[in-house]
Amino acid sequence: MLRLSTPGKTRFTQAPHLDVCFGGGEANVAVSLAGFGLEAAFVSRLPENDIADRCISELKGLGVDTSSIVRGGERMGIYYLESGSGARGSKVVYDRAHSAFSEIRPGMIPWRKVLEGAKWLHWSGITPAVSQGAADACLEAVKTASEMGITVSCDLNYRKKLWKYGKAASEVMPELVSYCDLIMGNEEDAQMVFGIVPEGGFDAEKCGGSPDAARFGSVCRQLMQRFPRCRKVALTLRGSISADHNTWGGILFDGQTLFESRRYDITDIVDRVGSGDAFMGGLICSLLAGSGNQRALEFAAAASCLKHSIPGDYNRVSTSEVENLINGNASGRVSR
Amino acid sequence: MLRLSTPGKTRFTQAPHLDVCFGGGEANVAVSLAGFGLEAAFVSRLPENDIADRCISELKGLGVDTSSIVRGGERMGIYYLESGSGARGSKVVYDRAHSAFSEIRPGMIPWRKVLEGAKWLHWSGITPAVSQGAADACLEAVKTASEMGITVSCDLNYRKKLWKYGKAASEVMPELVSYCDLIMGNEEDAQMVFGIVPEGGFDAEKCGGSPDAARFGSVCRQLMQRFPRCRKVALTLRGSISADHNTWGGILFDGQTLFESRRYDITDIVDRVGSGDAFMGGLICSLLAGSGNQRALEFAAAASCLKHSIPGDYNRVSTSEVENLINGNASGRVSR
Amino acid sequence: MLRLSTPGKTRFTQAPHLDVCFGGGEANVAVSLAGFGLEAAFVSRLPENDIADRCISELKGLGVDTSSIVRGGERMGIYYLESGSGARGSKVVYDRAHSAFSEIRPGMIPWRKVLEGAKWLHWSGITPAVSQGAADACLEAVKTASEMGITVSCDLNYRKKLWKYGKAASEVMPELVSYCDLIMGNEEDAQMVFGIVPEGGFDAEKCGGSPDAARFGSVCRQLMQRFPRCRKVALTLRGSISADHNTWGGILFDGQTLFESRRYDITDIVDRVGSGDAFMGGLICSLLAGSGNQRALEFAAAASCLKHSIPGDYNRVSTSEVENLINGNASGRVSR
Amino acid sequence: MLRLSTPGKTRFTQAPHLDVCFGGGEANVAVSLAGFGLEAAFVSRLPENDIADRCISELKGLGVDTSSIVRGGERMGIYYLESGSGARGSKVVYDRAHSAFSEIRPGMIPWRKVLEGAKWLHWSGITPAVSQGAADACLEAVKTASEMGITVSCDLNYRKKLWKYGKAASEVMPELVSYCDLIMGNEEDAQMVFGIVPEGGFDAEKCGGSPDAARFGSVCRQLMQRFPRCRKVALTLRGSISADHNTWGGILFDGQTLFESRRYDITDIVDRVGSGDAFMGGLICSLLAGSGNQRALEFAAAASCLKHSIPGDYNRVSTSEVENLINGNASGRVSR
Amino acid sequence: MLRLSTPGKTRFTQAPHLDVCFGGGEANVAVSLAGFGLEAAFVSRLPENDIADRCISELKGLGVDTSSIVRGGERMGIYYLESGSGARGSKVVYDRAHSAFSEIRPGMIPWRKVLEGAKWLHWSGITPAVSQGAADACLEAVKTASEMGITVSCDLNYRKKLWKYGKAASEVMPELVSYCDLIMGNEEDAQMVFGIVPEGGFDAEKCGGSPDAARFGSVCRQLMQRFPRCRKVALTLRGSISADHNTWGGILFDGQTLFESRRYDITDIVDRVGSGDAFMGGLICSLLAGSGNQRALEFAAAASCLKHSIPGDYNRVSTSEVENLINGNASGRVSR
Amino acid sequence: MLRLSTPGKTRFTQAPHLDVCFGGGEANVAVSLAGFGLEAAFVSRLPENDIADRCISELKGLGVDTSSIVRGGERMGIYYLESGSGARGSKVVYDRAHSAFSEIRPGMIPWRKVLEGAKWLHWSGITPAVSQGAADACLEAVKTASEMGITVSCDLNYRKKLWKYGKAASEVMPELVSYCDLIMGNEEDAQMVFGIVPEGGFDAEKCGGSPDAARFGSVCRQLMQRFPRCRKVALTLRGSISADHNTWGGILFDGQTLFESRRYDITDIVDRVGSGDAFMGGLICSLLAGSGNQRALEFAAAASCLKHSIPGDYNRVSTSEVENLINGNASGRVSR
Repeated sequence: MLRLSTPGKTRFTQAPHLDVCFGGGEANVAVSLAGFGLEAAFVSRLPENDIADRCISELKGLGVDTSSIVRGGERMGIYYLESGSGARGSKVVYDRAHSAFSEIRPGMIPWRKVLEGAKWLHWSGITPAVSQGAADACLEAVKTASEMGITVSCDLNYRKKLWKYGKAASEVMPELVSYCDLIMGNEEDAQMVFGIVPEGGFDAEKCGGSPDAARFGSVCRQLMQRFPRCRKVALTLRGSISADHNTWGGILFDGQTLFESRRYDITDIVDRVGSGDAFMGGLICSLLAGSGNQRALEFAAAASCLKHSIPGDYNRVSTSEVENLINGNASGRVSR
Repeated sequence: MLRLSTPGKTRFTQAPHLDVCFGGGEANVAVSLAGFGLEAAFVSRLPENDIADRCISELKGLGVDTSSIVRGGERMGIYYLESGSGARGSKVVYDRAHSAFSEIRPGMIPWRKVLEGAKWLHWSGITPAVSQGAADACLEAVKTASEMGITVSCDLNYRKKLWKYGKAASEVMPELVSYCDLIMGNEEDAQMVFGIVPEGGFDAEKCGGSPDAARFGSVCRQLMQRFPRCRKVALTLRGSISADHNTWGGILFDGQTLFESRRYDITDIVDRVGSGDAFMGGLICSLLAGSGNQRALEFAAAASCLKHSIPGDYNRVSTSEVENLINGNASGRVSR
Repeated sequence: MLRLSTPGKTRFTQAPHLDVCFGGGEANVAVSLAGFGLEAAFVSRLPENDIADRCISELKGLGVDTSSIVRGGERMGIYYLESGSGARGSKVVYDRAHSAFSEIRPGMIPWRKVLEGAKWLHWSGITPAVSQGAADACLEAVKTASEMGITVSCDLNYRKKLWKYGKAASEVMPELVSYCDLIMGNEEDAQMVFGIVPEGGFDAEKCGGSPDAARFGSVCRQLMQRFPRCRKVALTLRGSISADHNTWGGILFDGQTLFESRRYDITDIVDRVGSGDAFMGGLICSLLAGSGNQRALEFAAAASCLKHSIPGDYNRVSTSEVENLINGNASGRVSR
Repeated sequence: MLRLSTPGKTRFTQAPHLDVCFGGGEANVAVSLAGFGLEAAFVSRLPENDIADRCISELKGLGVDTSSIVRGGERMGIYYLESGSGARGSKVVYDRAHSAFSEIRPGMIPWRKVLEGAKWLHWSGITPAVSQGAADACLEAVKTASEMGITVSCDLNYRKKLWKYGKAASEVMPELVSYCDLIMGNEEDAQMVFGIVPEGGFDAEKCGGSPDAARFGSVCRQLMQRFPRCRKVALTLRGSISADHNTWGGILFDGQTLFESRRYDITDIVDRVGSGDAFMGGLICSLLAGSGNQRALEFAAAASCLKHSIPGDYNRVSTSEVENLINGNASGRVSR
Repeated sequence: MLRLSTPGKTRFTQAPHLDVCFGGGEANVAVSLAGFGLEAAFVSRLPENDIADRCISELKGLGVDTSSIVRGGERMGIYYLESGSGARGSKVVYDRAHSAFSEIRPGMIPWRKVLEGAKWLHWSGITPAVSQGAADACLEAVKTASEMGITVSCDLNYRKKLWKYGKAASEVMPELVSYCDLIMGNEEDAQMVFGIVPEGGFDAEKCGGSPDAARFGSVCRQLMQRFPRCRKVALTLRGSISADHNTWGGILFDGQTLFESRRYDITDIVDRVGSGDAFMGGLICSLLAGSGNQRALEFAAAASCLKHSIPGDYNRVSTSEVENLINGNASGRVSR
Repeated sequence: MLRLSTPGKTRFTQAPHLDVCFGGGEANVAVSLAGFGLEAAFVSRLPENDIADRCISELKGLGVDTSSIVRGGERMGIYYLESGSGARGSKVVYDRAHSAFSEIRPGMIPWRKVLEGAKWLHWSGITPAVSQGAADACLEAVKTASEMGITVSCDLNYRKKLWKYGKAASEVMPELVSYCDLIMGNEEDAQMVFGIVPEGGFDAEKCGGSPDAARFGSVCRQLMQRFPRCRKVALTLRGSISADHNTWGGILFDGQTLFESRRYDITDIVDRVGSGDAFMGGLICSLLAGSGNQRALEFAAAASCLKHSIPGDYNRVSTSEVENLINGNASGRVSR
C-alpha cells in the first residue's frame, strides 16, 4: 500500500505536500524479518505502474524477496495518514477499494510453489477485510501452508473502516484463524472480531493508562479454547495517554503460562503506525531463532518499542539495537 | 481530482514526497473564470472525506462557487504526475477508476436548479471518458442547458489512457457535442475522437515544430459541418520541441473567417498541464465580455501562454496580466 | 496579519526559510466559528497587494465571509514568530506599525451596513493597542453594535510590545469594554489592563504550574463589578511548565456561579499561538447554540486544547472533534 | 533589506513558504567587493531586532565590515519577490515605508569618521527615493566624501514604485549626482531620472532584443555634459527576451572613447535581481586594481553575467571565476 | 561513492542542506544495465557503516547484485557537487582519499569467483586514478577476466583532480587498457591520458559548439592502433554551450567503419553527471542484445541523452523509453 | 568539522537529504563566547576548498575571529549524525580520519603570535584523540600558553570511537591536562580517561535517572589531587531518561567547596550535541566577567540547558536569555 502522510504535524487541510512511503501489515512484518537478517518474502498483487514499481524497489532494497508478487489490476491501494499530536489522534483515510490486491482471486498466486521451502506463513486480518476475493485467497494460502506443515500466524488487526464488502469479521475470521499456530492481536481486536473481552470488561477509547496484563490473560485463554490448533497467543497492550505518549508492552500465553514483557513508557512518539507489525516481526524472528517464550516476547516488545521512534511503516532496526534495549539501555544516549 | 506530482524533475522512483494540488478540466476552467472576476461555479461529485474537503476549500479560496458539488461515493480521483524535462516527457498515472465522480449517475445533480441563472455551461471530453454514468450525467446536463437556452461549450480533451468502460469516444462524443455552441480541441483531439484530420495529414508524435495554422482550418470546417448547432470552433496548436520548450497558439473559426492568434515561443516551461483549460477559460471570459473573435482568441492564447509558467493545474493570472502580454510585453521584466 | 515563522525549532538567526500563514485575534475567532459551521465574517482593512489577496483567499477558503474587508493603506502587518522549545520561549517580533489596519480611521467601515443581520460582534484588545485610529474605529463599531442590540464580546489580549502610540491600555480599554456583554481574558490580562489581581496575588512569569481556578474567580467578580453591562466573564488559565508542556483550562462567571472547565495537561505542544482565540471561538459557538454555561465552557476549553496540536494561528477543528474530546477521548488514538 | 521570495516558480498566492535572504543596492555592491578580496564596509541604519541581527551576521560572514551600521528605528525594510518565468515577469511588492533606514536623518551617521581611510564611496538611487531624510543623509555623505577627496560613484537605479514622499527623482537626483566621479545606470534609468534618451528613442518594455550599444553612447555623452565632475559613465544593456532569457552587456564612456563589453546571451536565468549591483561591484574592483577601461568593463560585465546564475541578491563569485569567464570559458563545463 | 549536492542552483556557500545520492562510474553502469533488465553486479569495497549500508540498499533496490561487495576500510568516498547554471559550471569537490575503495589491495576481491558466469567486465579510468592499490586490483581483475574469456571494456574517464598518488595516467593506463575489447572515452580523455588528439587539434574549454564527429574518427583509429586487442572504440561528443545547454552524441569505430549517432540538442539540463556512464550502459546493453553497431550506438546516445533529464548519478530509464527516443519522439509530450 | 545530520527523526537509511552545519568542541565554545559578546578566536587547520570556506564564513558571521586558521591538508573532517528519539539513541558516524586538522603538526600554528593578548586558551580532549600530530600541536599550544601566563582550560571529552592512532587517552591526556587551570568533564570522562570513578561506582549506560551530585564531588577531588596546577574542576551531570528527556546540571569544585547548580528537567530535546561545550562557554564567560563560583556555575548550567532547544552544534543564545533562565523563568512563555 502507498502511504501518503502529512509532514510535521499538519492537518490534511494544510499540508503543502504529502510524504511518500509504503507499508501494510504483511509487508511490514517482512521488512522487520529481513532487517533482522532472515530470508523473508512478500507475496501480494500489485498493478503494472510506476508507483507499484517503486514499492517493489524499496522492498528489494530492504532485503525482502519480491519475486512472488503478481502484477495486474487497476490500482495500488492508498492510505492517507494525518499525523496526530496531543489530544488530537492520527487520522487515516483509506482509499484501498478496487486495489489490485483487493481484486485478488483464488488461483492467482501459486501458493504451493511460493511456499516451497518456507518455514512460516504470516497473514494479517486486514487481508480478509478488504474483499471476498482477498479472504478467499487468504484461505487458500493458509490451507496450503497447513497441508505443507508450515507454521501459520496471524495478526487479528481489526479495522472498523474496512469490512465493507458485505461480510462481518465475525463471519470470515473464524475459519481463517482456525489454521493458525500463533494468534496475535491487541487489546481491542479479540473483542471486535470474536467478542472476547477481558474478565471485568475494557473500554480502550476511555482507557488512557496502561491496560492490565493480568486481565488480558483471560483473553488469551478464551482464544486458545476457541482455536484448538493454536499453540500460542500474543497480545500487545497499549495505554494511550496522548498521541505522543503511550505505554507499550505485550503478553504471551502458551496454554499454560502467561508471560508478560517489560512495559515501556514511550514519550515523544515519532510514528506508531506499524508497531503491531514490528511486534509480530520480532516475535517470529526470536521464535525461529529458538528463543524461549519470555525472551521472544521481550524481543518483540523491544523491537516494537523502537518502531515508535522511526518515521514510516517499516521498522528499520537491527538485532543488536533491539538487544541493546532489552539489556536495559533505554536512555537514548548518543552513540559516539 | 487530486494531483500528486513529483517535485523538481524527479522521477516517480526517486521523489522524496509528492506535491499536492487539485485540478481537472472543468475545475481549471472555473478557476480561470473566477480569477478574471466572473462568477463561476464548479459542479461535480466528491466523497465525504478530508481530501475532498480540502479540494473544495481551495476552490472556494479561489472564488469558485462550490455550493452545487454533491457529496458521496467512495474516493477522490487521483492522477500522479511525473514532471518531464528535455526529451523525457511528463508521465501521468491515472487512478480515477471508481472515483465518486466516475460513479455519478443521471439524477444525482439537479441540473435545472444548478443552471438557474447561468449563461454558459462548459464540459470536457474527459467526463464522458470516465464511465457510462458520467457520460449519461453529462448528456443530461447539456440537454437541460440546451432547453434553458444556455450557451454550451466543450473541450474535446481526448485521453487515450481513459475510455476503458467499454465504449469508444467515437460512439459517445457525437451526441454530446451536438449540443455545443462552441467546440474546442487541440491538434490531436479531432483526429482521435472523430477521425477528422487536417488536409495533408498530421502526426503529432513526430512533429517537433509548429503545427501549421492554415492546414488546421480544414479541421475546424469539418467539425462545423458535422455539428450544425456549433457556431464556433477553436483549436490550440502546440509544437513540442522538448518538454521544456513548446510553441503555442490557437485558431478560431466562426463559420466564415479563420482567425489566428499570435504564436508564442515558450521556453523554460514550468507546468503545461491545464494550458488547454486556461485557453478555454480565456476564450469564454473574453466572449462573455463581448470581445470580437480576434480579440477573444488573443486573450485565450495569452492567458494560456502564461499558464505554462505557473505550477499546478490552475491558471493563477489576472486580466491585467493577460492584457499586458497581448500588448506585446512578453519580456518577463521585473515589475518593481 | 501575515505570520512568518521559523520552521522546526530553528532560531531567527538560522532559519533557511520562513513559513507563511495568516492570523490575528479576530480572524482566528472567525475561522473557528466558520469551521464549526456558523456564518462568520471578518472585517478589517488590508492593502491592495498580492500578500493581502492571499490572506483574503485563505479566509474565503476556510468559509469566512470577507466581503466587508476594506482595501487601502500601505502595507500588511507582519509578525515574525520564532518557535520556542523547552526552557526557551517562543519569540515574537512585531512589524505592524503603519499597517493598513493600524491606519484605519472612523468612517472607513460602514458599521451599520456591515453589522446588518449580525448576532454577535467580537473584538480583541490588540485592535485598540495598535493606533489611535484603530481604537477609535473599534469604539465606533462597539457603539453601533450596542445600538443595534448585537451582543458584543472582547478578548482583553494585552500585549506589552504594542501600545506604543502614546496611550496606555488603562486609558483606552475601559470605555471600549463598557459596551461588552462578555469579557474574556487570561490570567495576566486583567492585571495588565485594569490592575485587577487575584486575591493573594499572582506572578505568571514565575508560575510554572497550574494557576488556581478558585483564586481567579475573584478576578471575574472584580471585572463584573467594574463593567455593569457585562453578563459573563471568562478566563483561560495556563500553567507554563515549558514551551512544550502547559496545563490549560478556563473558568466562566455569570455573576452568580463560577464554572470551571476540565484542566488539560498538554504536552508536545505544536503551536500555542491562537489558543485564546480558539477558546473564544468555542465559547461563542456554544453559547450561540444555546448551551448552558458549563457546557459552553467545556466546549471552549476542549476546542482550544486541540488548537495546541495544530500549526498556524487558525484552529482547524470540527465540532465533532471537540465533542469527542469533551466526551473524554483524549488518548490520541489512531482513527482507522 | 529583508527579501522574502517565493520558492520554485510559485506565485505569491501559492508559495508554501518564503525563502529568506538579504539585499539592497549598496549591500550587494559591498558583498561583491568583499568577495573579490577588497576591504568593504556597509553603512546603513537597522532596527534593534533579531531580523536585523541576522542581516548583519550574514554580511559579516561574507567579509563585509558592518561596524558603521547604526541601530535604531522601528522596522527592517522588506521586499517580497515573486520569481517570474517565461512571459510572466518577476514581481516585487515593496514594504519599505517606515523602515529604520527610511527614517534616517542627517547627523545620524558620523560620515567623516566612517569615511576615514576610505578610497571610494558608492550610493544607489534607491536611497534618495525612499524618504526625504534618506536623501538628505545621502547628500551629507557625498558632500563629506567629496571634501575628503574620496571617489564617489552612484547607480541611478530608478524604481517607479518608490519616490512616494512628495518629490520626484528629477528634483532630488541632480544635486546628488553632481558629486559623482562615476555614474552608472541601465538603459532605462537616464530616461526616467533625467529625461535623457538615446538618439532615436528607446522603449524598454517593448524591446525584447538587445539594446544597441552605439545608440546608448549618446546617453553617456549627455550625462557627462550635464555633470561636469563626472569622469566616467557606465551603462548596463539588457535585452529581455523572456524572464529566463536575457542578453546582457555594458558600455563605458570616459569622455572620449566609448568602450563596449562582450554581449552575453544568458539563458536559464536563476536570479537576475542584483545584477546591476554585481556590475558596479566588478567595475569598482577592477578600476581600483588599476585596470584599463576596457578590462574593467569586461570584468564588470562578466561578474554580473555570473550573478544571473546565483540565487539571492548577492553575487557569490570569486575573481578567478570572473576571469575564467572573461577568458572565454562560458561553457559551464563541470570542474572536476 | 556518496554524492552530496547543493539543491536548486545554490552554491556551496549558501545551500541549506545537501541532497544525498550515490554514484560512481562502475555503479552507474551497473544501474543502467539492471534498469534495462540485465543481470548486473557491482563489485567494490565499502566500509562497515550506515552510510555504506544505505548505498548497498539503494543498489539492491535498483536490481543490482551487491553480493560481491567487500566490507572493510575506514570511510566511504564522497564527492560534493555544486550544480552550475548558465556560464557558471558545476563544481566538484572530491573527498575520496583514504576511502575504503582507495585502500583496496590485490587479493581482497576473489576475482575468479566473482567473475564466474559473467559475460562482461567493465571498469572506469577513475579506479586506477584513486590509488596504487586500486590500480593494482583493477589490473588483477582485467587479467583474470581476460584469462576467463570475458569481454572487457573501459571508460577512460580522465579526472584531473584525481591521480595524486604519485603516478600519472599515462604511466598506469596503457597496461590496463591493453586488456580491453572495447574502449570508451570522451573528446578530452584520449588527449589527457594518451596524448592522442584529433587531426587538426581540439580545445574543449574553448569549444562551445558541437565537436566535429569526422575529426574524432582519427582519435578512434589512433586508439585502436595503440591497443591491438581492442575491437571497438566509442567516443561521446559533447558541445558545451552553457551549463544548461549541451549538444550530445557519439561515434563508434569497429576498425573499419566509423558510425555516428544522431546529435541531440539538450537544453534545460537537469543533471549531466553520469551521462558518460549512461552511454556505456546503453552500449553494453545493446551489444549484448546482439544489435549491430549503428543500432547499439544510437541506443547508447539516446539512453545518455535521457540521463541529462534525471537528477542523480543513476540513469533511471527503461528500454522502452530509450527506444521511444530513438524512434524520433523527442518532443517531451505528456504521456496520458 | 562538517556535520551532516538526518532531518526530522529519520534514520541514515531513509533521510532524503542531510542538513548541513558545522561544529566541534573548540569551535562551539568560541561561538558561545562570541555570542555572549566576548572577543573569541578559533584556531584550527582547514583545507583549501569551498566546504571549509563556508565553515569559516559561518564562524565570522557569528562574530568569531578566524584570522588564525591555517589552510592546508586534504579534507575537512565530517561527522554524520542520526538524530535519535525515545529509546533509540542518536548515532554518530565519524569520518574525520585524514582531515586537515588531524594532519596538523607542531610548528604549523605560530602559537606565540596567535596567543598574543589572549587571556584564556581552551582545548578539548577530542583534539589529542584524533592523531599524534594533533596531540603534539595541542601540547605545543598549552605549553606556550602556560609560559605566557594565559589561563588554560580543557574539556576531557572522551570519545570511544576516536583514539585510533595507536595511543590510549590514558597515555596522552595526563601531560596535556597537567597544564590546565580548569578541568571540565562529564560523568563518564574522568572514568574513561583517568580511571577515576565516584565513590560507590557509576554506570552511565544503565543510569536513566539523575546522577547524584554529591558522589561526583569525589571525582573532582581526585582530579585536583592528580593535577596540582588545576584550580577548578567542573563536571556536567546528565541523567538520560530517553533521547528526548534528560536531566541536566553541573558541579564545580574549587579545592575547598563543592558548588552544585540547579538541576534542569529537559523534555522535548531538540539537539543535545554541543551541550557540554555550551556549558564550558558559559563557565568561561562568567568567570572572565568576575562572577563567583556559584554564579558562574549557574550561568554555565543555564546556558547549556538552553542549548538543548537549539538545532545544530552552536549555542545561539544571548546573555540576557541565560540570565532570564537563571532568574527562574523556565516556563517557555511566548515573549510578545
